[in-house]
Amino acid sequence: MAKRCRICQKKAFIYLRYANLALCKEHFIQRTEKVVKETIEKFKMFSPQDKILVAVSGGKDSLVLWHILGKLGFKADGVHLDLGIGEFSSLSLKLSQKFSETHQFNLKVVSAKEVLGASLEELFKKSKEKPCSLCGTVKRHLLNEFAYKEGYSVLLTGHHLDDETARLLGNLLNWEIDYIWRQFPVLPQEGRLVKRAKPLVFLSKKEIETYAQLEGIEYLQVKCPYSRGSKLHFLSDIMDEIEKHFPSSKLRFLKGFYKLRKIFYPKKPIKLFECPSCKMPTTSEGLCRFCRLKERISHGENFKTN
Amino acid sequence: MAKRCRICQKKAFIYLRYANLALCKEHFIQRTEKVVKETIEKFKMFSPQDKILVAVSGGKDSLVLWHILGKLGFKADGVHLDLGIGEFSSLSLKLSQKFSETHQFNLKVVSAKEVLGASLEELFKKSKEKPCSLCGTVKRHLLNEFAYKEGYSVLLTGHHLDDETARLLGNLLNWEIDYIWRQFPVLPQEGRLVKRAKPLVFLSKKEIETYAQLEGIEYLQVKCPYSRGSKLHFLSDIMDEIEKHFPSSKLRFLKGFYKLRKIFYPKKPIKLFECPSCKMPTTSEGLCRFCRLKERISHGENFKTN
Repeated sequence: MAKRCRICQKKAFIYLRYANLALCKEHFIQRTEKVVKETIEKFKMFSPQDKILVAVSGGKDSLVLWHILGKLGFKADGVHLDLGIGEFSSLSLKLSQKFSETHQFNLKVVSAKEVLGASLEELFKKSKEKPCSLCGTVKRHLLNEFAYKEGYSVLLTGHHLDDETARLLGNLLNWEIDYIWRQFPVLPQEGRLVKRAKPLVFLSKKEIETYAQLEGIEYLQVKCPYSRGSKLHFLSDIMDEIEKHFPSSKLRFLKGFYKLRKIFYPKKPIKLFECPSCKMPTTSEGLCRFCRLKERISHGENFKTN
Repeated sequence: MAKRCRICQKKAFIYLRYANLALCKEHFIQRTEKVVKETIEKFKMFSPQDKILVAVSGGKDSLVLWHILGKLGFKADGVHLDLGIGEFSSLSLKLSQKFSETHQFNLKVVSAKEVLGASLEELFKKSKEKPCSLCGTVKRHLLNEFAYKEGYSVLLTGHHLDDETARLLGNLLNWEIDYIWRQFPVLPQEGRLVKRAKPLVFLSKKEIETYAQLEGIEYLQVKCPYSRGSKLHFLSDIMDEIEKHFPSSKLRFLKGFYKLRKIFYPKKPIKLFECPSCKMPTTSEGLCRFCRLKERISHGENFKTN
């Protein structure tokens, strides 16, 4: 028997197994936006008074986030990091710009190569470190620095349910208490670290993808060529298997964690130092990881930062 | 190049990837016993003064545990539960008895059907509950009751690294705080609940299997026909995948948990009541789950206990 939309009883377009919920196109779109709205409110992520910045990669997650913010009536600017990973990056930039133009949203572009002295691809080729680790350092720094310098009060990213549960599983397997503690949909501003939030944590990859297609959002379909075989991809596959076997596992896992997250409060709160070069907060004395990377690039050394 | 034993440099017989350790037969046996000895000491599980009881199923885990206890100089009796699951149970009993005779160890047999009024197989066929859940209730009750009534000071089970990590993963996915808290290699005596310990938690299934073969232990090779497709089997396969991808994950996961387990201390410690029938501790007022099951069997009702 064909499933019917739970709201209007029309023929269903999608069945969300984890919620045992069948919906037509219209009500699927409505619900997706409602989930985001409620997440923003529940975690007090921001209000219309905030100066909001979205990290825009050109992929479905960040574009859907930006799109929904607009529909919810929030004015949000975007920042795109041009990482310099060949065609992957040029296509990402193109799609981000196209989206911002059709939506008449403000998009700023920050070039990693300009700030750092080398593109990410050049870094990957010369460094022994894992690409995702290097890229993470660079992205976190550039996004925060831009948000801070431009006076944004909150920085949003498009991390979703699949990202967050894969990361949580990885952090639990290694009992990385500090990382576990910091894995929350909203982290308050700390000195020059701008407040961060993830309004899509309760939406699955599949929901975001479907929403993007229904709303006619043109997004980057290819994955970063350097991310293949990454730890997070593997853990994401593991979580998919678990979800398939026990529907709703991901949502239960993440929501349950948020509820009792306070037990992971670190006994010794992480002390933050000020990087003498960029003035941004860092977890150890001396140059921050980003500035050490930058220094080694300028000296033509190898890029190992640990 | 063929690997060499790390201790004596002879040709290695086994390579333990998680420990990056190659060993000859002799030193593998030595190491396995040492791991058990150190686990017993580290968690203060028992001393030679204790009256020790081992839950003996006839599988490799319990027989290897009992065998090693003997080699370490501990005097331990065994108890075998005859669950009444067809040929699986009769073979389990036969192998347990054979082992106890060749080792000249004391083995007592408790028949589930005699105490409960029905065999587990009869229960499985009539109840809507999952076999592993029913069987768990019966086993926990019968083992503790026997240990308590016979005056044993500690009850040992053969749970190993693979069991414990699969269970921990399952408990974390659902944030079952009480179960997480109680998942420790040693649990103190609480009223009529006898002290329990799991001396094999740091040995993998593979190590136990190999040890059993080297020591000529004849054990039950078949699995319970009702356990197929169980939650724990699935989670165990998931942990195997993780271990394969990230060697040593299981040990790191479990050891890390034991280190910081205190953060899971329940805010409201579980209140234990006394079952008015069997006088054993139970988590709710009135008859314990085991006695409810027994009552329904005697009334010829369906066996649902929840």
